[in-house]
Amino acid sequence: MDLGTIIGLIVGWALVIASMMMGGSLMMFVNAPSVMIVIGGTLATTMMSQPLKRFFGAFKVVMMAVFDRTSSVEETTNKLQEFAQKVRKEDLLSLENEEISDPFMSRAVRLAVDGVPVDTIRKTLTDEMSALSTRHDSARGVFDFMGAIAPAMGMIGTLIGLVQMLQNLDDPSSIGPAMAVAMLTTLYGSLIANLICIPLADKLKDRNTVECANMVLVIEGIESIVKGENAMITKEKLEAFLAPVQREVQEGD
Amino acid sequence: MDLGTIIGLIVGWALVIASMMMGGSLMMFVNAPSVMIVIGGTLATTMMSQPLKRFFGAFKVVMMAVFDRTSSVEETTNKLQEFAQKVRKEDLLSLENEEISDPFMSRAVRLAVDGVPVDTIRKTLTDEMSALSTRHDSARGVFDFMGAIAPAMGMIGTLIGLVQMLQNLDDPSSIGPAMAVAMLTTLYGSLIANLICIPLADKLKDRNTVECANMVLVIEGIESIVKGENAMITKEKLEAFLAPVQREVQEGD
Amino acid sequence: MDLGTIIGLIVGWALVIASMMMGGSLMMFVNAPSVMIVIGGTLATTMMSQPLKRFFGAFKVVMMAVFDRTSSVEETTNKLQEFAQKVRKEDLLSLENEEISDPFMSRAVRLAVDGVPVDTIRKTLTDEMSALSTRHDSARGVFDFMGAIAPAMGMIGTLIGLVQMLQNLDDPSSIGPAMAVAMLTTLYGSLIANLICIPLADKLKDRNTVECANMVLVIEGIESIVKGENAMITKEKLEAFLAPVQREVQEGD
Amino acid sequence: MDLGTIIGLIVGWALVIASMMMGGSLMMFVNAPSVMIVIGGTLATTMMSQPLKRFFGAFKVVMMAVFDRTSSVEETTNKLQEFAQKVRKEDLLSLENEEISDPFMSRAVRLAVDGVPVDTIRKTLTDEMSALSTRHDSARGVFDFMGAIAPAMGMIGTLIGLVQMLQNLDDPSSIGPAMAVAMLTTLYGSLIANLICIPLADKLKDRNTVECANMVLVIEGIESIVKGENAMITKEKLEAFLAPVQREVQEGD
Amino acid sequence: MDLGTIIGLIVGWALVIASMMMGGSLMMFVNAPSVMIVIGGTLATTMMSQPLKRFFGAFKVVMMAVFDRTSSVEETTNKLQEFAQKVRKEDLLSLENEEISDPFMSRAVRLAVDGVPVDTIRKTLTDEMSALSTRHDSARGVFDFMGAIAPAMGMIGTLIGLVQMLQNLDDPSSIGPAMAVAMLTTLYGSLIANLICIPLADKLKDRNTVECANMVLVIEGIESIVKGENAMITKEKLEAFLAPVQREVQEGD
Repeated sequence: MDLGTIIGLIVGWALVIASMMMGGSLMMFVNAPSVMIVIGGTLATTMMSQPLKRFFGAFKVVMMAVFDRTSSVEETTNKLQEFAQKVRKEDLLSLENEEISDPFMSRAVRLAVDGVPVDTIRKTLTDEMSALSTRHDSARGVFDFMGAIAPAMGMIGTLIGLVQMLQNLDDPSSIGPAMAVAMLTTLYGSLIANLICIPLADKLKDRNTVECANMVLVIEGIESIVKGENAMITKEKLEAFLAPVQREVQEGD
Repeated sequence: MDLGTIIGLIVGWALVIASMMMGGSLMMFVNAPSVMIVIGGTLATTMMSQPLKRFFGAFKVVMMAVFDRTSSVEETTNKLQEFAQKVRKEDLLSLENEEISDPFMSRAVRLAVDGVPVDTIRKTLTDEMSALSTRHDSARGVFDFMGAIAPAMGMIGTLIGLVQMLQNLDDPSSIGPAMAVAMLTTLYGSLIANLICIPLADKLKDRNTVECANMVLVIEGIESIVKGENAMITKEKLEAFLAPVQREVQEGD
Repeated sequence: MDLGTIIGLIVGWALVIASMMMGGSLMMFVNAPSVMIVIGGTLATTMMSQPLKRFFGAFKVVMMAVFDRTSSVEETTNKLQEFAQKVRKEDLLSLENEEISDPFMSRAVRLAVDGVPVDTIRKTLTDEMSALSTRHDSARGVFDFMGAIAPAMGMIGTLIGLVQMLQNLDDPSSIGPAMAVAMLTTLYGSLIANLICIPLADKLKDRNTVECANMVLVIEGIESIVKGENAMITKEKLEAFLAPVQREVQEGD
Repeated sequence: MDLGTIIGLIVGWALVIASMMMGGSLMMFVNAPSVMIVIGGTLATTMMSQPLKRFFGAFKVVMMAVFDRTSSVEETTNKLQEFAQKVRKEDLLSLENEEISDPFMSRAVRLAVDGVPVDTIRKTLTDEMSALSTRHDSARGVFDFMGAIAPAMGMIGTLIGLVQMLQNLDDPSSIGPAMAVAMLTTLYGSLIANLICIPLADKLKDRNTVECANMVLVIEGIESIVKGENAMITKEKLEAFLAPVQREVQEGD
Repeated sequence: MDLGTIIGLIVGWALVIASMMMGGSLMMFVNAPSVMIVIGGTLATTMMSQPLKRFFGAFKVVMMAVFDRTSSVEETTNKLQEFAQKVRKEDLLSLENEEISDPFMSRAVRLAVDGVPVDTIRKTLTDEMSALSTRHDSARGVFDFMGAIAPAMGMIGTLIGLVQMLQNLDDPSSIGPAMAVAMLTTLYGSLIANLICIPLADKLKDRNTVECANMVLVIEGIESIVKGENAMITKEKLEAFLAPVQREVQEGD
């Protein structure tokens, strides 16, 4: 589970809600028709521009990106080195009963244990990595689109509200509240874009980078293991491969 | 027919119209001169910037993109494998009486049945694919341009309205309605851009990707069939080719 | 002459002027100092940023792009095939008295008739094509710059007007008209950008693409003719070369 | 220490604070809830979009970029030539007791003295340079994101304040101060973006370029020294390598 | 001296000042604290983001770009052909007493006369060209940054002014002037960006292109002369090299 995203989401919305409540009732900021036009309009235009499957898939992908646990590069490297040593001492079949939580590594090991040729393993795993990357990119496209269209839908709602208000200026006391309601859609659009869509699109991009780096590591490691390369060489290969990334983890943060 | 686009279009506009009616009469939002300047101005500037043929073609292309049915990648793969098996059992001519709804695949099969050499088939089909892609891109250019110019035309209309209003401030009771009318053009421009042009431009881009992927599949498949390759090899070839895409379809959505 | 640009320009401005007159007198929208600061300021900043020659050349280039007639790709292909057949029957010198309206094709034929070697013909014509493309790009740069700076000059004018108005709030009846005048510069800047500069910059880009495609066709055709290739081969070569483009013309529009 | 950044930061904020105090009390511009929503919201959304480690690392990286001293290209060149001459007169081990402030050069020299093979030295140092560049880029990504999201959070705060104000128009005397408070968040967001995040992101980009150029110089120099190349050749090599950069330093500024 | 830039700068500011004076006193538009926050703030943030040397160098570079005279491509070609003929008749040393105003060409000739090998001449001159290009790019970066940050500083100033005004609504007669003063910073920021920084950044880009084309010409010409190539070949080489550019000069403008 990605703690930063969860904390950021909760803290961000808590701050917004707190500052709404500070000036009076939170109910001032709730208006069903405004919610309807901004959220409904954003979803409708997104459906217009994206294939239905990708549209519905995007929410699933983003949940997975936030809640699934990714192995860190160090864990992956350690696990692969452990496997390399075990195979060195015993043989490839000794990996059969390993419990592996990462489904990609699990699949890689199963292919190796099943005696699938190295080239086929590499092709199969690379295809899977590519498919995941495409899914992430598609989902990101959906959130990018919503992040751009939500403020526009908010502005449309506000324009509608202002036109209605301007046509009914007879009762001066209703001008303030009417304008307040008109501005709610702009507020909603801005909240949807800046507190949900834009950060999630960025998160998906980042998550994709991390997972692909991890998968490349698994592919390199399994190939080295199946080829029966010396555990030392495997270790060096893995570290050489990810050196800059790992260093960032160890030194930079 | 692309269901998402139709549903999104209907729901989006229904939400907008509903929220207009909620605050009073829908007639408040109808103003012929405003419609004239925003829609007319957008079409006129688009005609200025684009060749006439492409301008008129764009609407036809977008209708085709929304209403024509595209075969899914799976259907195309299945159909091609079916053909491969039939040709294996009988011969190429056995495809002569196949009824094929996809015109591109139909043309590909006809070329094969007519005994056109493999290289010429590939060149002809590739040219056709390239022509379609150019048409889609041109049409997308038209909608991109309209999506950018419509809000600008809306702002021009609002400025004209505000200048007229500010020159006639004598009757305070007319200020509200005059300003309401002035804002209508900004609303129209925003609706045209965000509820029509921008999502359709995105849809055309997506549709182009899907259709080209499909056509590449047909080209590969027909080549394999004409060369008389083993049905098994044809199958593997096709699946290898589209693996990441198909996986997305099967796993991701 | 490019009909779309002329029609678009006339219709666009007619709509704007009509909607100005609808709300009262057109004179409300004419203010000499506002014209001066927006048009003058836009031209002055453009002169600052661009070499003088390119600045003055841009207007000539855009007039040529709108008023000169371009041969369509089909006309060019037909003409070249006609030449190829004539040369086949008689000889190269038979092209000497052909009347050719397109100056580029005319130059190409003259070079061929004069017995200039094929390589030199190709180099000379390619250089000319490249020079034209550079001229179009430079002119487009000028209109792009003006399209971006005109709204900024409009905003500067409006700010100046607002500051003047706010310093003289003594006479309430003058506030409206003063603000109306202040807004005129924003309106002018927006009109210059959206109804002139942006569509013309786009048109130049498109025109460049079309003319270059045409010239490439002439270069290929003349080379084929001078080399004395079979008329049939010339025909195929030309059609193969422009297939996607021509198809777009025939099928798409 | 980067003097320009420190001076710019102090002068910029001094000017802003001075102009706040000129119009009355500075306390007019302090509002705890506004600070909370803009700074809190910016940090929260940044946490949502970036891995936690990178988020916290960014501040450390930017402090290092501002306060650590970078050697100038000339100092680095001079130091390396001095080393080359010393090694020429004595031997590699004579560098053992050199005191070197730049940790990268210090590490390079230690590797050389320890007799590590040239290829390994180059690989190790290149990896370190790449890791630093990745850290700088990550940190820059954080500041880029904050520079874009802070004004959006400011606008959200202002919208919330305006809605609250518009719902309570009963007391006319409170309208002014309420609107003033509402505008504070937009001001805060703009200050955070333009007086902190955007200049720092640019500075990190520039700093990265300078440090990498410096490190490339060290790598080239140490390689030349370890290979025992003539001091003259080393000198020429170094100067050839950085000629355009150094010239900029000597002639341009 | 670049006439367009000087004329544009004078005319642009004259128009702005004229339109300020038309509506009353120019003093309405002068406000020391506003000047201080916009100009000071823009310079301070630019110092934060750029190395000090580059910051101060940018103004020198832009003055040189505007006031130094560049040789036209034709002058350079003619001069080089004249040299080629002179060397042909006499020898390389005959160029020793030539008076050459362009410092780059002067340096090239001195290197040739001094008998420096061709390869070293080319390398030296190319390095110098590259250094100039880097200086232009750095200076352009400074003006690009200021063109983007100046309007932001203007908005910050306006927000500060509005907050101060809104906190002191007691005296209605002071509202107008206070708001006028608040808007001055936005006006200043816009003027700095659009009438100084953006056009100058564009001019630097253009100037760089022209000077580099000129220098490439000198490098090619001197190489040809030193190698003792036939004057005719030198001529053709030069013209072939710059054909599209020169044609633009001769035909297009």
